[in-house]
Amino acid sequence: MTEANSTTANPSTGAGAPTTGSGQRADGRALDQLREVKFTRGWLDSAEGSVLVEFGRTRVLVAASVTEGVPRWRKGSGLGWVTSEYAMLPRSTNTRNDRESIKGRVGGRTHEISRLIGRSLRAIIDYKALGENTIVLDCDVLQADGGTRTASITGAYVALSDAVGWLRDRNRLAGEPLTGSVSAISVGVVDGVPMLDLAYNEDSVADTDMNVVMSGNGDFIEVQGTAEGRPFDRGVLNQLLDLAAGGCTTLTELQRSALQG
Amino acid sequence: MTEANSTTANPSTGAGAPTTGSGQRADGRALDQLREVKFTRGWLDSAEGSVLVEFGRTRVLVAASVTEGVPRWRKGSGLGWVTSEYAMLPRSTNTRNDRESIKGRVGGRTHEISRLIGRSLRAIIDYKALGENTIVLDCDVLQADGGTRTASITGAYVALSDAVGWLRDRNRLAGEPLTGSVSAISVGVVDGVPMLDLAYNEDSVADTDMNVVMSGNGDFIEVQGTAEGRPFDRGVLNQLLDLAAGGCTTLTELQRSALQG
Amino acid sequence: MTEANSTTANPSTGAGAPTTGSGQRADGRALDQLREVKFTRGWLDSAEGSVLVEFGRTRVLVAASVTEGVPRWRKGSGLGWVTSEYAMLPRSTNTRNDRESIKGRVGGRTHEISRLIGRSLRAIIDYKALGENTIVLDCDVLQADGGTRTASITGAYVALSDAVGWLRDRNRLAGEPLTGSVSAISVGVVDGVPMLDLAYNEDSVADTDMNVVMSGNGDFIEVQGTAEGRPFDRGVLNQLLDLAAGGCTTLTELQRSALQG
Amino acid sequence: MTEANSTTANPSTGAGAPTTGSGQRADGRALDQLREVKFTRGWLDSAEGSVLVEFGRTRVLVAASVTEGVPRWRKGSGLGWVTSEYAMLPRSTNTRNDRESIKGRVGGRTHEISRLIGRSLRAIIDYKALGENTIVLDCDVLQADGGTRTASITGAYVALSDAVGWLRDRNRLAGEPLTGSVSAISVGVVDGVPMLDLAYNEDSVADTDMNVVMSGNGDFIEVQGTAEGRPFDRGVLNQLLDLAAGGCTTLTELQRSALQG
Amino acid sequence: MTEANSTTANPSTGAGAPTTGSGQRADGRALDQLREVKFTRGWLDSAEGSVLVEFGRTRVLVAASVTEGVPRWRKGSGLGWVTSEYAMLPRSTNTRNDRESIKGRVGGRTHEISRLIGRSLRAIIDYKALGENTIVLDCDVLQADGGTRTASITGAYVALSDAVGWLRDRNRLAGEPLTGSVSAISVGVVDGVPMLDLAYNEDSVADTDMNVVMSGNGDFIEVQGTAEGRPFDRGVLNQLLDLAAGGCTTLTELQRSALQG
Amino acid sequence: MTEANSTTANPSTGAGAPTTGSGQRADGRALDQLREVKFTRGWLDSAEGSVLVEFGRTRVLVAASVTEGVPRWRKGSGLGWVTSEYAMLPRSTNTRNDRESIKGRVGGRTHEISRLIGRSLRAIIDYKALGENTIVLDCDVLQADGGTRTASITGAYVALSDAVGWLRDRNRLAGEPLTGSVSAISVGVVDGVPMLDLAYNEDSVADTDMNVVMSGNGDFIEVQGTAEGRPFDRGVLNQLLDLAAGGCTTLTELQRSALQG
Repeated sequence: MTEANSTTANPSTGAGAPTTGSGQRADGRALDQLREVKFTRGWLDSAEGSVLVEFGRTRVLVAASVTEGVPRWRKGSGLGWVTSEYAMLPRSTNTRNDRESIKGRVGGRTHEISRLIGRSLRAIIDYKALGENTIVLDCDVLQADGGTRTASITGAYVALSDAVGWLRDRNRLAGEPLTGSVSAISVGVVDGVPMLDLAYNEDSVADTDMNVVMSGNGDFIEVQGTAEGRPFDRGVLNQLLDLAAGGCTTLTELQRSALQG
Repeated sequence: MTEANSTTANPSTGAGAPTTGSGQRADGRALDQLREVKFTRGWLDSAEGSVLVEFGRTRVLVAASVTEGVPRWRKGSGLGWVTSEYAMLPRSTNTRNDRESIKGRVGGRTHEISRLIGRSLRAIIDYKALGENTIVLDCDVLQADGGTRTASITGAYVALSDAVGWLRDRNRLAGEPLTGSVSAISVGVVDGVPMLDLAYNEDSVADTDMNVVMSGNGDFIEVQGTAEGRPFDRGVLNQLLDLAAGGCTTLTELQRSALQG
Repeated sequence: MTEANSTTANPSTGAGAPTTGSGQRADGRALDQLREVKFTRGWLDSAEGSVLVEFGRTRVLVAASVTEGVPRWRKGSGLGWVTSEYAMLPRSTNTRNDRESIKGRVGGRTHEISRLIGRSLRAIIDYKALGENTIVLDCDVLQADGGTRTASITGAYVALSDAVGWLRDRNRLAGEPLTGSVSAISVGVVDGVPMLDLAYNEDSVADTDMNVVMSGNGDFIEVQGTAEGRPFDRGVLNQLLDLAAGGCTTLTELQRSALQG
Repeated sequence: MTEANSTTANPSTGAGAPTTGSGQRADGRALDQLREVKFTRGWLDSAEGSVLVEFGRTRVLVAASVTEGVPRWRKGSGLGWVTSEYAMLPRSTNTRNDRESIKGRVGGRTHEISRLIGRSLRAIIDYKALGENTIVLDCDVLQADGGTRTASITGAYVALSDAVGWLRDRNRLAGEPLTGSVSAISVGVVDGVPMLDLAYNEDSVADTDMNVVMSGNGDFIEVQGTAEGRPFDRGVLNQLLDLAAGGCTTLTELQRSALQG
Repeated sequence: MTEANSTTANPSTGAGAPTTGSGQRADGRALDQLREVKFTRGWLDSAEGSVLVEFGRTRVLVAASVTEGVPRWRKGSGLGWVTSEYAMLPRSTNTRNDRESIKGRVGGRTHEISRLIGRSLRAIIDYKALGENTIVLDCDVLQADGGTRTASITGAYVALSDAVGWLRDRNRLAGEPLTGSVSAISVGVVDGVPMLDLAYNEDSVADTDMNVVMSGNGDFIEVQGTAEGRPFDRGVLNQLLDLAAGGCTTLTELQRSALQG
Repeated sequence: MTEANSTTANPSTGAGAPTTGSGQRADGRALDQLREVKFTRGWLDSAEGSVLVEFGRTRVLVAASVTEGVPRWRKGSGLGWVTSEYAMLPRSTNTRNDRESIKGRVGGRTHEISRLIGRSLRAIIDYKALGENTIVLDCDVLQADGGTRTASITGAYVALSDAVGWLRDRNRLAGEPLTGSVSAISVGVVDGVPMLDLAYNEDSVADTDMNVVMSGNGDFIEVQGTAEGRPFDRGVLNQLLDLAAGGCTTLTELQRSALQG
């Protein structure tokens, strides 16, 4: 891995939700504060783009693999393709989970997150400018402490940028394929309190859990809010969206600075 | 199937989005208008609850199966369980799709929707009142014309109610397990125009597609908005939520009347 | 679904077996009497042929899908192909069965019936006249009360006829591919008494169970008789064949009248 | 393997079909004549029963494995169980077939034949006398030249008898579990001529193909006749049944003599 | 199967390990003595090469199947390919094992041995001389009493030779593809004593188990030694290699004489 | 991850093979020289033992997971169990490989290596002292540059030691389960020259490839030598074993020092 690290302290984003003074969160964060976010670019020697992204103790290794050509159903269209696969190592979690390769089937949650990551990144891709190239984003969770899908998306953008740079350096692009940047963050309601970037111990007790994917200029790419516990009203929804918007603004800046590193 | 049918005309919901006068939609609906919704209860002779639900040409057969006992990980807890499986018949669509049984694996989309339906219904279940009973909601799409997941959820609530009634009649409940009702509807932006309850020809060209699951008293259970095409801003998000809220209000009334039928 | 329904009362076929006067069968039928048979053509809007076929409470949705071209091993032969897939919805039966898609493998019974349906329909196809077109017959059992395979075959002929008509209307045939019609019925020995068209409560206690597939002019296409209980002699076999022949004659008339509807 | 061999010449059975004088069949057999049939008992050293059965060049190794206890759904019933699995070695045929283990799924034909063999043997089993023991009959085709399913059933009876003897010797039976014997033979119509025990070169061009399983006293256990080519009439059906009855009578004698060897 | 049998008595190989006089081994063999080895060539009528190879009670049926052409990744290279698949019949062993086809996946041991056999045979193949032909060696264990993988390799060489002869007779070779011969034998340490060609009762209690594959001129093709029990030192390793070399020398002679038979 | 790092320079082991002076190896190593070896203990926060082991650019994350109890077949024996699973991330290699979870089956090579790692570690385990505890060693290759199986085994010993320490700290052992240490290294012949610890560019052109697993006191646990190219003689085998013994001696020291770190 190269020296291109970009670390950030974890400032309060100053967004919507008021910070309750007295260390409400187990790790002492303000309600609108991200965990420490870190990008280590070039973690793999041979991938066209790669990053080890960390949101606190959550660590995801993202590899961007470029191949010439596109899937069969897209051949001859002149358009490129971007897709993603997400997986967790068996002991990334507190207790070991069986491997999906050994179970012989990919679980619903894995499928769902893989599809989410792919869609999110495709939202900022100009397929025509990419030309008939395919970029696969492998997001492998080495350690999971909540927010693995949002860390994956946020890191995948960095790896994708590097892979696009690799193509650009070789004159294999038909234009500029990145129409913007993407980042993602989780928000949720814990004990009635909306908060940003839930760690596992918060996520596992949340009434409402929402993942928000945003473009670098503040528009929504994906909003997924779930109340398995208790339905939530429009007011709470708005608070959560405000918190997420603040978080994504910060992440966008961190991505930019990592890519300049 | 028994005589317990409940049909509704498809009134404009009168919600947020203005209706453009001139037949903007292929089928002549107003922007905030549902397709014709129909519930045929008791479509199956032996299921504890069943309904053939139709949203226009979309037809889903929902069966609610009650079994005594709960999955192993829940045994002895005194708590019940509700889960769901969704699938499409191979020729429910315009062109035939291969069967997942023959492919030997369940696809990501199927997994995702099955999980969504299960979560949505569990949001209104009091597990303790249900006792150690399991209810499985099988949602099989016989004909697909957009909105199969929202029709499934909306119909599943009706079948679930009947299954709960079946348990109640046999004194096998520890209380009232239904804490509310659930309905779901799709909304989306087509050619820049937000609209309610997208048919397939609308859905396939939408920039933004959102599925909203709501409780009978107007709170959110699930919000899933996706911009595979172009990111959307907060204003559009609000319009879509308004449209969805209107649609769900109507669906809630239709469910109520079907269950009284 | 369109208006093209064809219903029949269920007359005694007047074939071989004597009718015992006194309501021997649970549903009051004579020994040589079919259950009520009903064909609802055009149940699906987009399939090239489709029918909801009912034998009493048994309901099977058959879809005939036409695709240009044939499987690889047949390419360039100038010959067409007809095949079938059979499946049961999980709650088509009295108690719920797990989905084969989720088990990840198709069971032996499903395989066996799919192959039987395909073979039966191919027996009346002139492949050359069909030209290099493939017709897939999907038989999905919505409700099962005995005789699902015979209802499937009998309905599949109707859907196949409609699909052939669809091809004819588009001048995509090289001749008349249907060399006859096909119907099928079950017969069996219950408590020593041979009878026609067994419902589930009869089938489950039968000593001998036989499925007979016949062409419209009274020849045999498939005869499958099984004695899991007690072996049967030639005399019983002859009685069963007589009953089946009578049943198929009636079904052939009903198919004809449904197709004229 | 031990010395307990039983070989037979292949006499004309003298049944229904007239023998045409002039070597109509490629191997010179009369129309009602079996191929040479041979049973080599005890081919495996450790199986409770085993036989290498040969019908001409068709060779099937049958192993009968006894285990104490029965499948879960039958526990505590006091009843035994008999089941079967059939498979072909990849190069048992003229050209190599892929292994089903490597394809990861058992094909429809394999399933169908396994089920047929199991049903056929169960028809002569008194489950109560067998007690809670399970016998699995593995029929592995080492070389295939037509008639592998009928050779399997005929051989399986011999291996089953030996396995029952093994249980009897150890006083692990509750009575005599064999209520009769079972044999099976194929018949078919080739170029319009009904004939017995088809070899592969006959089977592959037959218009009608029928497999008949009979008990030792001449009753039917299973009749499976198929006309993929051309439907057949009642007269042909009767001729085929006559031929099969003759063939099974001879096989029954050969089994008896092998078991005395 | 043809008459081309080659049987050998089982002479002491006279290699490294001293023979202890007093029948140390259950079957009375000397420590450096092979079990009786037997090759029955042409056991299958249609395979291009086939042999039933026996090492004592271990019996493996090897079929060599020739097909024109090579796997996709090798097309147009002018080079041939040799590969192998190994499997055990369910009742080849003392107690029945479930079929891998039914479990839906090939086990690790099966994979490992298949790969070993393929590699071993490829070590003596000149791909260019073979031309673009593929030879698949199917090794199916009919009865297992230890040493199934070494019997498979040793027999596969004989079947491969016959398949090469078949190609030579048809002038389909570009030269002489066999650059040597291959044989294999197991050695192991039982109760501290190194010995040759372990039968199952020896293998199952061995501290160290080693399989050695050698070319006909005494070089090593594969050495696989395992100490699941207790690690072994260099001295023991040397003794085992001496024993194996002696065993392979004898096997090479037996192969030669079988191929001349 | 904690601070417990142990780095080593890569000294020539001084074993058997002469070092050719002139930079024969692409990376300038002597023939008997290991790549830089590094152990980072505690890389995962929640695993009972974990290490990131690096052999040059090859990086494997090993997690040791402790669970109370043993597999069913071992229950009540009082004995523990140790097993392993090996896998590669899709982009650990130069070009991306498809995930085995998505292919739905674990490949032969993966199976083989998983089994090798498990066997190797079990060779130094006293099951009785371990008590009825299971330790699973997950070896996930993050980056592959040759020697992934030997790095996995060498690292797995370190993670296993930490997991045993974790059990010891909680008084959950019945004695000292580690009877020694284990390390492993690859050796091979490239262009006729034997050398130690092959990197990918060496491994891919080697005539002979051997993996040697040794105990800390210099005995052999596993020897696997393969000549897919050209058979090798006893002299080469001895040279390779000498090189491996030297490499394992060094690795044993590095493990010891890492565990003291």
